[in-house]
Amino acid sequence: MSATGFAQLPEPPYYAVIFSSQRTPGDNGYDEMADRMVDLAHTQPGFLGIESTRGEDGFGITVAYFDSTENIAKWKANAEHRQAQAMGHRMWYQHFELRIAKVERAYGMGRPAAG
Amino acid sequence: MSATGFAQLPEPPYYAVIFSSQRTPGDNGYDEMADRMVDLAHTQPGFLGIESTRGEDGFGITVAYFDSTENIAKWKANAEHRQAQAMGHRMWYQHFELRIAKVERAYGMGRPAAG
Repeated sequence: MSATGFAQLPEPPYYAVIFSSQRTPGDNGYDEMADRMVDLAHTQPGFLGIESTRGEDGFGITVAYFDSTENIAKWKANAEHRQAQAMGHRMWYQHFELRIAKVERAYGMGRPAAG
Repeated sequence: MSATGFAQLPEPPYYAVIFSSQRTPGDNGYDEMADRMVDLAHTQPGFLGIESTRGEDGFGITVAYFDSTENIAKWKANAEHRQAQAMGHRMWYQHFELRIAKVERAYGMGRPAAG
């Protein structure tokens, strides 16, 4: 997956889609699709940012941020994203967990709390 | 950091502390402290689980789950954790972002939505 770095987000509240996953061995087209999904996410209504990483053990966490649960539902229903989800189920993920959460407070190194 | 795998969590609602960070080069005692903090987190009131990973580029995401914002505040204020936080600021992190979020819905591979 392409490096995403830190998301530049507005003040809370906003929503997080926390996706943790364990990859199956081998690439099988995963990296290309993951890059494509990051690009596609950026074009979605209400998309705010994304952070993603994966360790050498194949365990990864991606957090995508949106302005509303309605726009998260639209992203989930996006046709190209649905195709990627199906391939994830079939080939790429041994297991995954997905949690949708409302961000209430946020702060960063050298920046005080907001929200 | 020790492998955490997937957290086994109750049905929502519960809270997530989403901590994303960019490590400075070199270990400087980080791995040992990170393992210790995971162990310590498990002993905290209201702690539900933790998932954590870091890529080869040094960018990592850790999500710790608690039952309430009150218990997140207690975890933040824990004396040994505060010492680790100070060392994180001084030595281990080039940058970090922390977001506190209320998990409203959750589902996993082969498990329907809850919450």
